[in-house]
Amino acid sequence: MTIRVMLVGLGPIGVGVARQLASRAGFEIVAAVDVDPTKLGRDLGDVAGLGCTTGSEIVGDPVAAARASAPTVAVACTGSTLAGAWPLFDALLGQRVPIVSTTEELSYPWHGNAVLARRIDDAARAAGVAIVGTGVNPGFAMDALPIALTSICTRVDAIHIDRIQDAATRRASFQRKIGAGLTPQQFAAAVEAGTVRHVGLAESIAMIADALGWTLDRTTDEIAPKIADAPVASEVVAVRPGQVAGIVQDGTGFVDGRPAIVLHMEAYLGAPESRDTVHVQGTPDLHVEARGGYPGDIATSSIAVNTIPKVLAATPGLHTMRTLALPSFAG
Amino acid sequence: MTIRVMLVGLGPIGVGVARQLASRAGFEIVAAVDVDPTKLGRDLGDVAGLGCTTGSEIVGDPVAAARASAPTVAVACTGSTLAGAWPLFDALLGQRVPIVSTTEELSYPWHGNAVLARRIDDAARAAGVAIVGTGVNPGFAMDALPIALTSICTRVDAIHIDRIQDAATRRASFQRKIGAGLTPQQFAAAVEAGTVRHVGLAESIAMIADALGWTLDRTTDEIAPKIADAPVASEVVAVRPGQVAGIVQDGTGFVDGRPAIVLHMEAYLGAPESRDTVHVQGTPDLHVEARGGYPGDIATSSIAVNTIPKVLAATPGLHTMRTLALPSFAG
Repeated sequence: MTIRVMLVGLGPIGVGVARQLASRAGFEIVAAVDVDPTKLGRDLGDVAGLGCTTGSEIVGDPVAAARASAPTVAVACTGSTLAGAWPLFDALLGQRVPIVSTTEELSYPWHGNAVLARRIDDAARAAGVAIVGTGVNPGFAMDALPIALTSICTRVDAIHIDRIQDAATRRASFQRKIGAGLTPQQFAAAVEAGTVRHVGLAESIAMIADALGWTLDRTTDEIAPKIADAPVASEVVAVRPGQVAGIVQDGTGFVDGRPAIVLHMEAYLGAPESRDTVHVQGTPDLHVEARGGYPGDIATSSIAVNTIPKVLAATPGLHTMRTLALPSFAG
Repeated sequence: MTIRVMLVGLGPIGVGVARQLASRAGFEIVAAVDVDPTKLGRDLGDVAGLGCTTGSEIVGDPVAAARASAPTVAVACTGSTLAGAWPLFDALLGQRVPIVSTTEELSYPWHGNAVLARRIDDAARAAGVAIVGTGVNPGFAMDALPIALTSICTRVDAIHIDRIQDAATRRASFQRKIGAGLTPQQFAAAVEAGTVRHVGLAESIAMIADALGWTLDRTTDEIAPKIADAPVASEVVAVRPGQVAGIVQDGTGFVDGRPAIVLHMEAYLGAPESRDTVHVQGTPDLHVEARGGYPGDIATSSIAVNTIPKVLAATPGLHTMRTLALPSFAG
């Protein structure tokens, strides 16, 4: 049976989802929504670069689109914050549409956004459908996967996770989000303004802590620039020595005053080798490394698509990657 | 709230589970069952080497034990085959006791043992409780974990999984199960008799295939001896050159005539470095390695204990690691 998907948000991740849905068996895109006036009225195939016309025209009103297209599920890729995405979720849940979203703060909202989490959970239960936030990070590399690894431990003392990425392989908006090409002063101002940052470390830390039954004293989330010491360039930006090549971000969850959950991210142009590593300190000790890492953009659009059958099979309410059935490719 | 556990089967894995339950918060062992006449009537603390007396005496009748102790859940570690374990499962489900079992063939019985799987599922639904088979392998290293990795793929062409273990670190019964110390002739006879083998490759292959939506043409499961070329010894056995140091076992799942799921195991005394690797051939390509591997014995008893809360939260019926919520340490 074909799953009828309504797509909301046609930025880089939404376009990646559109391409997958168009090319993978079992899915049909029945509506495409965006707020960008330059996209409205155009064919989805044109906007998403599908190389064909889909007959699906980008519209601006998600409620009207849901009513007209009767989707099985919506995939929402509109932004990072829950406050920003909440009106959309509220509107779609009002139409009883299950939701998979790449909104980072939805991945584990029970600590940082508890009031909105409760509202979303209530709205989803009232609608009789499930909603979940997912992505490669948060949603997989620094939370769900490390949590799954702890299932073979009889004791866990600490978790250290490193995610090192050569940002030159990432989408243009990601390269901007990590400040590539800025001066150190511009970088500091952008961090202050909240425009340069990875959103999700606090959510990943909270997810891990809850999975392990740990109570967090506090969580820190610190951002520093990676300064280029030699010229480095991607297709998007050229960075001179002394300028910012990317970001170093450290999230730490403290338990009984001890840094028990330590997430370290580096994403910059010219990183020598992308990799994701997990070190579970416990019994047994586990050292797991993904050589080459989990590629950010394709992995996020993939896990969004692959999570669709899981959310359709889930009980009504707000889910997280902890409560859905084992993640997997949707074959 | 303390989870009241009834333990059935006090071989090496059951004893490992007993030790964890005795030392971890949130669990209480309320009954201990074994068929071995040398264990009956003895205190569990004595049999399991807990270093203390528990007041729990090993009894022989699981039904009487369940009636007397009103357990929240049973952990059953009695053997590898579903045919062998079925009478126990039937009896416990008849008492409405949820079950976590390390019986390898229970991990994914829908292909190789479909008739018994149906009976177990029916009995569990009738009892209103859940039952699952788990362990490090099958249950994690060569199925659940690789399946979770595919969640970030937009395409999967093949999966290759290698599990290399220095068997000297494993329990005595495991070293016997891999034929360490046999002559090649004895090894061939033991393979023929079914006493030397790892049980679970067919189950892991079936679990992966179903997760990916693949239809298997056929599955092969081949066993060869690893012959020692130099003397090698563990605390259990000394192996001379020309004798068997352990086992090499290859399981392959064919899809459209192609070896799409390739599981390779080596477990022998003197393996230079234990490791578990997963190579997902697809988009993206993934290479994930656990340095030092997932240690077999402690990992199996750990995942059995950690799965208890998952099975208690699950809907009634026969589950697998695919259908339970994300595996994790039970904190």
